[in-house]
Amino acid sequence: MDAAAYRPLTPETIAARLGAVAPVRARLGDDPAAWSAVEVGDGNLNLVFVLAGPRGSVIVKQALPYVRLVGESWPLPLERSWFEYNALIRQAARDAGSVPEVHHFDRGQALIVMAYLEDHVILRRSLIAGVEHPGLARFLGAFCARTLFRGSDLAMTAAGRKADLALFAANAALADITESLVFTDPYWDAPLNRHTSPQLDALVAELRADSELKLVAQELKGVFAANAETLLHGDLHTGSVMVRGASAVAIDPEFAIYGPMGFDVGMLIANFLMAFHAQSGHEDAPGARDGYRGWILGVAAEVWTSFAAEFAHLWRTERRGMLYPAALFEDQGQPLAAEAALTRRLRAVWTDAVGFCGIEMHRRILGLAHNADFETIADPDRRAACEARALRLGRQLMKDRRAIRDMDEIVALARLVDAA
Amino acid sequence: MDAAAYRPLTPETIAARLGAVAPVRARLGDDPAAWSAVEVGDGNLNLVFVLAGPRGSVIVKQALPYVRLVGESWPLPLERSWFEYNALIRQAARDAGSVPEVHHFDRGQALIVMAYLEDHVILRRSLIAGVEHPGLARFLGAFCARTLFRGSDLAMTAAGRKADLALFAANAALADITESLVFTDPYWDAPLNRHTSPQLDALVAELRADSELKLVAQELKGVFAANAETLLHGDLHTGSVMVRGASAVAIDPEFAIYGPMGFDVGMLIANFLMAFHAQSGHEDAPGARDGYRGWILGVAAEVWTSFAAEFAHLWRTERRGMLYPAALFEDQGQPLAAEAALTRRLRAVWTDAVGFCGIEMHRRILGLAHNADFETIADPDRRAACEARALRLGRQLMKDRRAIRDMDEIVALARLVDAA
Repeated sequence: MDAAAYRPLTPETIAARLGAVAPVRARLGDDPAAWSAVEVGDGNLNLVFVLAGPRGSVIVKQALPYVRLVGESWPLPLERSWFEYNALIRQAARDAGSVPEVHHFDRGQALIVMAYLEDHVILRRSLIAGVEHPGLARFLGAFCARTLFRGSDLAMTAAGRKADLALFAANAALADITESLVFTDPYWDAPLNRHTSPQLDALVAELRADSELKLVAQELKGVFAANAETLLHGDLHTGSVMVRGASAVAIDPEFAIYGPMGFDVGMLIANFLMAFHAQSGHEDAPGARDGYRGWILGVAAEVWTSFAAEFAHLWRTERRGMLYPAALFEDQGQPLAAEAALTRRLRAVWTDAVGFCGIEMHRRILGLAHNADFETIADPDRRAACEARALRLGRQLMKDRRAIRDMDEIVALARLVDAA
Repeated sequence: MDAAAYRPLTPETIAARLGAVAPVRARLGDDPAAWSAVEVGDGNLNLVFVLAGPRGSVIVKQALPYVRLVGESWPLPLERSWFEYNALIRQAARDAGSVPEVHHFDRGQALIVMAYLEDHVILRRSLIAGVEHPGLARFLGAFCARTLFRGSDLAMTAAGRKADLALFAANAALADITESLVFTDPYWDAPLNRHTSPQLDALVAELRADSELKLVAQELKGVFAANAETLLHGDLHTGSVMVRGASAVAIDPEFAIYGPMGFDVGMLIANFLMAFHAQSGHEDAPGARDGYRGWILGVAAEVWTSFAAEFAHLWRTERRGMLYPAALFEDQGQPLAAEAALTRRLRAVWTDAVGFCGIEMHRRILGLAHNADFETIADPDRRAACEARALRLGRQLMKDRRAIRDMDEIVALARLVDAA
């Protein structure tokens, strides 16, 4: 990679700069002069263009050498684009159609050209607007199961997983963001933090004084950093999913790294629970969204059950990696032992997931990166009331992650907290 | 690395080939014609020469492109020498004087020139001969604590640990040996296995039919493969320690890889427990070695207590990595919380270590690589009796790893089994 040659794209230069790229021409038409571009990036990090031509459109995503939200004072490696590209092609292979098709990748320009998802919106926007999407939970559960199972020693060759582990370990700068901003900063008065103040001040102080809570957060940070079971999406919240009706696609895996299976699943469930607690900030009259509340909790629960069902299916049909080989179990007439191993593995993933779920609910309210579910509630009193419920539920999930049995229990806790 | 240029050394060519290497001349003298070499490799994998000159001696260790024990039919990457070199320089930095000083490394020749340890012997030979070494347990416990703590996210920068994680993940071929030969093959009738037969046949069948035991082995295999906490020695048995009186040095870290802290500690303790159970095969008359038995068990126990004490010291004085930062605990007036975290971390390491300990005792009796403690017992009935005790203790340790509190309990179990 020639870093000197890197130049950010602009709507004016993009057609000329990509005009000779065959896969782009194939999708847009062969006359770059007829292409037009609009920059649509609303994330924190990158440039994102919709590049349109007579024949169709593509998305062009280019990394900037700094955090877009903050500016050049916070540098961030262009190489994150390389990890995003590598994650996208693996996710596509492991769960066909689950991510945007990659048409072209230019490592030097930190640039990915991928499929344009017509009329799709960010899932988080639907959850704020109160829009239901049939099949969403099944898509998300299956996506987690397939990508997490197939990126692990349950499915890959041992050398293949280690090669990928090494490749993605170089994504250290983005992992550092997660390690710091998710697991540590929310639990002390770190400079980048903010929260709805003064409404939440007392509760925030209570959480930051809770040493048991902080021990759990650090234990889970150790699990995130060291337990390199599988290739994670790494940032699988409801802002990383695009939807249109019953169609759903996962995007933006630039935080991809090897980590524990429970991380993606737990983060995802957390974002549904936060969407649930945010509803009273969005409904026109108290109770107006009760039906939608139920739908959200149903999705959260079904994300887990769909994940577990698909994981079990893959366990029984694709367990060809070095762990729990059939030679020890099925081939010895002990199929129940293989099922016992599945039960235990799923239980371990569940316990991690419940802990990560609680942490994600905290960091979105106490840390740097908040989410629109709460941020779009203009009245700070109303917002703080929603956020406080999520904070309390998050604490309970973190501390009781080993005792909590299933999603029914979490759903009941969420309802209890929301009614308080 | 130019693989084509690789040539194995011979006693005849070694002086000419290393004669121009300044650090070698500095130690042996400037006239290579006055140097002499003898090949002393007694391990399974490599060439090892003592190269002597008028001024002194050095050890020259060169990898072969296959497993020496088996021959060219079992290829093994020369690159293992690169990982051994990288492990040696890290271990030297993390525990000064604990490993042979590296004088010279040639990656293309897969060749390490290191300090010659005059009059040292392999610890396992001492344990068979009944020789005590004062201070041994303290050396081994401190070596484990310093290398394991200082190679982890408790001490390193997050990016630094990930860079080392990636480097050593490429040591996949040697990890594959551990993953297959330690964790899986002993538990089914794998082609490379052997055991003392027919004496142990019934017990071996019992173990291989024990599905709970196999589930534990595979769970621990998953921990070994994925829980990349720290840089392991990776093969820390009593054949990887050289001793002379009260001096001890750890050697041969070519299996180095990131893994769980409990692995090195557990494997080490296992080898003392096997040495203990082998004593009745070596003593001249029953009970003749009772004092030595006690010394061995004392060493096994003190390996753990020394490890735990040094680990606690480092936790309190060198915890500067990203995990359990002082900002969350000590700086908030919660020093007890940091101690609670230490207690829990040590407990988790202990639980893993007890499990790995049991597995190591199994694979040395059921798998491919046996150890001299038992192998030098010529009478197969006598040998099998010793081995059966180790197998039974190993099973108990694996299954009860979460319940067993401390080394006193393990020592009591070992004595109970040995008296049966």
